[in-house]
Amino acid sequence: TKKVNYGNRGMSLEQEINKTNQYYRERGIAVIHKKPIPIQIVNVDYPKRSAAVIKEAYFRQASTTDYNGVYKSHYLDFEAKETKNKTSFPLNNFHEHQIDHMKACQQQGGICFTIIKFSLTQEIYLVPAEIIFEYWDRRFKERKSIPKSIIQEAGYFINYKIQPLIPYLNIVDHLISQRQK
Amino acid sequence: TKKVNYGNRGMSLEQEINKTNQYYRERGIAVIHKKPIPIQIVNVDYPKRSAAVIKEAYFRQASTTDYNGVYKSHYLDFEAKETKNKTSFPLNNFHEHQIDHMKACQQQGGICFTIIKFSLTQEIYLVPAEIIFEYWDRRFKERKSIPKSIIQEAGYFINYKIQPLIPYLNIVDHLISQRQK
Ligand SMILES: [Mg+2]
Ligand SMILES: [Mg+2]
Repeated sequence: TKKVNYGNRGMSLEQEINKTNQYYRERGIAVIHKKPIPIQIVNVDYPKRSAAVIKEAYFRQASTTDYNGVYKSHYLDFEAKETKNKTSFPLNNFHEHQIDHMKACQQQGGICFTIIKFSLTQEIYLVPAEIIFEYWDRRFKERKSIPKSIIQEAGYFINYKIQPLIPYLNIVDHLISQRQK
Repeated sequence: TKKVNYGNRGMSLEQEINKTNQYYRERGIAVIHKKPIPIQIVNVDYPKRSAAVIKEAYFRQASTTDYNGVYKSHYLDFEAKETKNKTSFPLNNFHEHQIDHMKACQQQGGICFTIIKFSLTQEIYLVPAEIIFEYWDRRFKERKSIPKSIIQEAGYFINYKIQPLIPYLNIVDHLISQRQK
């Protein structure tokens, strides 16, 4: 099967967002960074004339989300998630503590969301955290995924652009203006 | 020489702040986290029945500060620094990109500062980023450190408490109310 790519030349969603954030940072538009992966370091070697080498370490589960930062005085906090599903976004893509973290940030007045990429069709949506919480909180009683139709209705489609690649702050502007009403 | 400790029982400043942030998070007061140390992973082993082991990795220089998060709708961003100096805080404790990051965050409306601990006397001060910038920008022309007297005048002394250990959000409240004037 031939892989079709559009603007993004086969980058992962994270790489695309990193490039977008770099664009925003370099122009003084927003300061958003990817958080480093948390690592449990067990053993480090300190050779005499060169840099310290980590010889044994383990991946730890992140206690927060992928990205956070500041934009127009607002605290932004979001996850990036890709799925190969066609008709829905499975909620088991989230860890409980990621949801808890987004709920806590939202409660403090932060703007929280998830950027979801349907990788087979290269479609990207910004989904406000409220939508995620609504389905998450009912996942044992009702369905364990968010239908794509809901994501299309309650979320925001993001068109790939050249600069920046994923102009998600346009949608954040909309969320901010809705808040101020 | 006998080591004198007060409230903190020999914890490092980072440990003290981590405990403080945990207190704030658990009570829904603020969501502030320490960012993980950035690591360049070179070689990972995937044993059959157990967790992946990082076999070779290197420390990378952080491109941001130690802590960030959200409090009363405000974006907070800060560094924690300890010094054994008695009369001043040497500016070479900062990397240029940490200063650049704080400047960029401040420009976006974030609240940026450094928590400085004079470890010999166990004194802690919250120093607003503007003070740091002022001395940093003149470090080649004038002195390469911030006098402790300036830190005492323009910064804010933080008294150790039992809960939370370093109640720095009280001072952030003050900074917020000053802004709103
Ligand atoms: Mg992710
Ligand atoms: Mg530090």
